[in-house]
Amino acid sequence: MKPLLAATLFALLPAAAPAQSGTACCATGDLGLVVERATGSLLLVDRSDRAAIARIEGLGDLSHASLTYSPDERFAYVFGRDGGLSKVDLLTRQVVARTIQAGNSIGGAISDDGALVAVSNYTPGGVKVFDADTLELVADIPAPGKTIGLADLPGRRFIWTVWDSGEAYLGDFSGPEPVVANLGPVGANPYDAVVTADAHTYLIGLFGEKGVTAIDLWDEPPEPVRFLEDYGKVEDDMPVYKMPHLQGWAFTEGQFVLPAVGRHELLWVDRGTLDEAGRTQVHGQPVFIVAQPASPYVWVNFAMPDNDTVQVVDSRTHEVVETLKPGKAVLHMEFAPRGAEAWVSLRDDNRIRVYDTRTFEVKAEIPAESPSGIFFTARAHQPGL
Amino acid sequence: MKPLLAATLFALLPAAAPAQSGTACCATGDLGLVVERATGSLLLVDRSDRAAIARIEGLGDLSHASLTYSPDERFAYVFGRDGGLSKVDLLTRQVVARTIQAGNSIGGAISDDGALVAVSNYTPGGVKVFDADTLELVADIPAPGKTIGLADLPGRRFIWTVWDSGEAYLGDFSGPEPVVANLGPVGANPYDAVVTADAHTYLIGLFGEKGVTAIDLWDEPPEPVRFLEDYGKVEDDMPVYKMPHLQGWAFTEGQFVLPAVGRHELLWVDRGTLDEAGRTQVHGQPVFIVAQPASPYVWVNFAMPDNDTVQVVDSRTHEVVETLKPGKAVLHMEFAPRGAEAWVSLRDDNRIRVYDTRTFEVKAEIPAESPSGIFFTARAHQPGL
Repeated sequence: MKPLLAATLFALLPAAAPAQSGTACCATGDLGLVVERATGSLLLVDRSDRAAIARIEGLGDLSHASLTYSPDERFAYVFGRDGGLSKVDLLTRQVVARTIQAGNSIGGAISDDGALVAVSNYTPGGVKVFDADTLELVADIPAPGKTIGLADLPGRRFIWTVWDSGEAYLGDFSGPEPVVANLGPVGANPYDAVVTADAHTYLIGLFGEKGVTAIDLWDEPPEPVRFLEDYGKVEDDMPVYKMPHLQGWAFTEGQFVLPAVGRHELLWVDRGTLDEAGRTQVHGQPVFIVAQPASPYVWVNFAMPDNDTVQVVDSRTHEVVETLKPGKAVLHMEFAPRGAEAWVSLRDDNRIRVYDTRTFEVKAEIPAESPSGIFFTARAHQPGL
Repeated sequence: MKPLLAATLFALLPAAAPAQSGTACCATGDLGLVVERATGSLLLVDRSDRAAIARIEGLGDLSHASLTYSPDERFAYVFGRDGGLSKVDLLTRQVVARTIQAGNSIGGAISDDGALVAVSNYTPGGVKVFDADTLELVADIPAPGKTIGLADLPGRRFIWTVWDSGEAYLGDFSGPEPVVANLGPVGANPYDAVVTADAHTYLIGLFGEKGVTAIDLWDEPPEPVRFLEDYGKVEDDMPVYKMPHLQGWAFTEGQFVLPAVGRHELLWVDRGTLDEAGRTQVHGQPVFIVAQPASPYVWVNFAMPDNDTVQVVDSRTHEVVETLKPGKAVLHMEFAPRGAEAWVSLRDDNRIRVYDTRTFEVKAEIPAESPSGIFFTARAHQPGL
């Protein structure tokens, strides 16, 4: 199985070149951005051509970064570790607005209508909300500590959680003034949280105690409920950098699947009852668990020293069906929205590998500088992304 | 609650004007096409601006038409009643290829990788498969009768069913030659079929006998299973034009919801057991039942003489929570992909009405000529659409 090296080479890539004249490269439905963490740049990729088409520079510190897209799939809002919020135009391939809005930010979200971009911050804590057109500050919501797990909810709302106070908040920005409700205590030191794809459940991982907290967002008012009382915190306190990403929790076949903290295990949970539904022994400590669209499968990557491996697990049988060795330091996996391909970033091999999800054939490899997160524009249409 | 009339007027719309120079209108993530059934034209709409931006003409007979999008959200493939397959470029706003590929076609689909477009035909029966770039015929699959319920499956596959023989077929087009498997008998006179959003289940409605047939597409081999043995065919044979659209079946909260044929009722079915889980009395004979994304709600429209009404039903309680009167002849409903808005076509009022799904406020009205189907480009990223 010989990887096909993409014809596009680094040296030929224009940095932030304007879009070609005419319309050949204007449709944005199959584009994507790859975070190049060491160089503070973004690689613009074309899914259909399986190729890099431009590099966009000047994004600041992207050593821990994420991004979200405008509804028209034209603009990306990039949240950098240095507190930078940058707006990138995929058509002109330029940073069109940038603000250092905090000292240390950890993520953000865009409102369902694309009007507002919210950022959650560590230093100082709180949530800042910006006009998506201009990046002007429109609301500054203080918090009693570091904010984590910020996500968009329908109706121009956002939800977030505060590490220090262990409380979740729901902010409604649909009226002339923001209305922020405290949803109550969720547990000690929530370290990450995620909304399910149907915007039904907000799941909160705890660092300070055992258990996971769920909030049914369709309830009025939404209330925190604890489950999996034995999940999480292990005997020896673990360093935070080994905590799995909650955005990697996959939701399939009426189940959640969670990374078992500190163990080489996936944990399956029945969505209806919140009871454990099974476990899967895997190759290492899971980091991301991502559901392959239109399939019963989830793909899992692992923490060091097992980060050269990806495993594919069947959500019906809970069995590992494939073990792949993509290369050095698998940091992220992103699926073509209909599930035909998986794109895997290999930080220490400086490339992205593209798998056919049906045959596991390597369809292409694309050079990239220390790639981490891969974000396809199809995310623009998914609640919670 | 006063509808806001969009500023765009018919007379000002250029027919198939090229895209403006520059990049202002090139991103395609928030565009859509509305079928204008009487005039054989398509209205290009911008979701963000809630406005029509162009009319594209020369599509033939669109009195019963559907369409699907290329993965880059640039091209639409339009399936017309007259057997015409047209390729429309959203950037240049022109028909760029067109072929009369049959005497009477009823729908089509695009492969998960965007390489192939398949069309299901009544006259003659069978499935024709075209190169998505050129519309050249690449495969002609005969069938023992009229083909219905054609849908794409992952791995460059399509599934379809034959009305006359009551059999379902799975075609794999990933190799050099198509491989077509007969999945066996599904019941008498299947009249429509649909794939769930996760590409897990193929549901087939029967006209010739009672019951519904499900095929688990993740099984190897997939096998037809009958359920709801009392569903469907009523005492007096009903004309086919009153049969509900199966593509309107919604899938929410672990349930299917089906239109009860000939009755003023929705039927809720547990996905796991395939048993009936409840019924909802509604305003008329349901036609489309569409799940509002990121919510527990489905929206329902109705056959004549109740086609001035839309009802919103809660999938948790099975209760009607809102009754709307959008106008004359509600033919279709399409949601913004994150669920913030519902666009409703009003054929006999010659307009589209845009609702805020949270407040039910009318946010805009857009003039259109006898509008029927509304198709947003976000469909490009959804299996089975």
